[in-house]
Amino acid sequence: LSSKLLAIDWGTTNRRVYLLDQSGAILLREDDDQGMLAMRGRNYVAELARIRILYGDFPVLIAGMAGSREGWIEVPYVSCPASVKDIVSKIHWVEPQRTGIVPGVSINLSDRSDIMRGEEVQLLGASLAGMVDQDSLLCQPGTHCKWAEMDGGAIISFITAMTGELYSLLKNHSLLPGGLDDGVFDEVAFLEGVSSGGSGDFLANIFGLRAARMFGRRTAQDSTAYLSGLIIGADVNARSIHRHVGVIADPFLGGLYATAIAHNGGTATIVDSQAAFAEGMLAIWNHS
Amino acid sequence: LSSKLLAIDWGTTNRRVYLLDQSGAILLREDDDQGMLAMRGRNYVAELARIRILYGDFPVLIAGMAGSREGWIEVPYVSCPASVKDIVSKIHWVEPQRTGIVPGVSINLSDRSDIMRGEEVQLLGASLAGMVDQDSLLCQPGTHCKWAEMDGGAIISFITAMTGELYSLLKNHSLLPGGLDDGVFDEVAFLEGVSSGGSGDFLANIFGLRAARMFGRRTAQDSTAYLSGLIIGADVNARSIHRHVGVIADPFLGGLYATAIAHNGGTATIVDSQAAFAEGMLAIWNHS
Repeated sequence: LSSKLLAIDWGTTNRRVYLLDQSGAILLREDDDQGMLAMRGRNYVAELARIRILYGDFPVLIAGMAGSREGWIEVPYVSCPASVKDIVSKIHWVEPQRTGIVPGVSINLSDRSDIMRGEEVQLLGASLAGMVDQDSLLCQPGTHCKWAEMDGGAIISFITAMTGELYSLLKNHSLLPGGLDDGVFDEVAFLEGVSSGGSGDFLANIFGLRAARMFGRRTAQDSTAYLSGLIIGADVNARSIHRHVGVIADPFLGGLYATAIAHNGGTATIVDSQAAFAEGMLAIWNHS
Repeated sequence: LSSKLLAIDWGTTNRRVYLLDQSGAILLREDDDQGMLAMRGRNYVAELARIRILYGDFPVLIAGMAGSREGWIEVPYVSCPASVKDIVSKIHWVEPQRTGIVPGVSINLSDRSDIMRGEEVQLLGASLAGMVDQDSLLCQPGTHCKWAEMDGGAIISFITAMTGELYSLLKNHSLLPGGLDDGVFDEVAFLEGVSSGGSGDFLANIFGLRAARMFGRRTAQDSTAYLSGLIIGADVNARSIHRHVGVIADPFLGGLYATAIAHNGGTATIVDSQAAFAEGMLAIWNHS
């Protein structure tokens, strides 16, 4: 095995390139906007050659939407339960042991299906590297928030909530007279949103924010935090949490989820999402 | 009193002009797109003169968003409980007994505020004309669905759910790969949506539709009906209905709500929204 690995989190909009050593240390990291959408009609092989010139001629593992139908090569999902071995066995090797695309994970129950691409790496990394217990409930906030049940380091089951995307839709398309203000984050308004969001009456709550603005009960400043609380509160409350949750996120969004989880009677540990990704890619590489 | 009345439902986007006689009969009715938005920067006085030339020189009563800050003249809300007498006493008379703007209704509780403009006319009309019992729960589906508790023909309390607007947001902005198909309405898919929508997990349900599409569990054809069911199901379920509801709507949307109400253990009567508006305007006129 090579002493170093280029691990790429190649998402829809963003791309993160990590240069890792065998200890899981991140030697170099670069974020850019060259995600799947920016790559449309462009050559992934040439792009990888360019990345290897920049970072070194090391093996490359790719996770995320680059492995989807709209990306480079569509790699079929691995069904739950999914261990690191299950995932490694379904890597699509563009060049054996040199350039591989990690599959996403799916779940197919009698009443619902769900999918992930990229998040599985963080889930396995956090679990296998001991950042959380191996039988934890894990939460990955973002555009689409994933909630995953782990057991023995494998992904047993998961469900996705449309949180970040709905927040953007409501914020950018017509929710509020006078708009929202992205200045200082108002913690009191956030917690009031979390409380209301737990009522199970999401549709009335979001209209209520509009009415509150008209009566001066909310300002442009605290509406952003309140709306964020409404959505996160509805998400967390629907999980019926009275247990420990590992929240894989950046500190700000992780802190918001941890606060909402505590408000709903649970406890949370925030796990750094980039460290979890690095550990996951290393575990996948070492099993391959 | 004049023998005839011009009653105008002057909304944000649409406008409906009714010529009514004292029996509540609709002698003429015209719908157009000259709502508040189309009237921006234009002269309401000149527009009313044009309407009187077309329909006759009768008294005019206006309800809806024309009475809001962005409309012709801002008429303050009447607070709940709101009877027909309360509303009549707050009509803004542009010309006494000749051209009046009906106020909207608001509710201000310790934990929430809510507002309506235009819906109050239908609520009073349905109740006072005996189309529903005077102590009914009334439901007005639409862009923003109103649920109102009536007592003795007055509006005691109400709450608004962001149903139609959220449906449009999700439909037109990015929800589904491959889009939605507005062809034949699939009743089975609608009822499945109503069932899922009652789970209280709205955020996961809407992402679930995307995943279902990716796995071929839903088609472009039945996704429209399923999404509609999800939203209506979430709305109706949040009302904890095990009683009779008067649904003031057109027959199609009214039928969807009646179906969802029955699914949640209630019963429903569909009340024609235009007849309710005509009765409401006539009652207001006769009390003024």
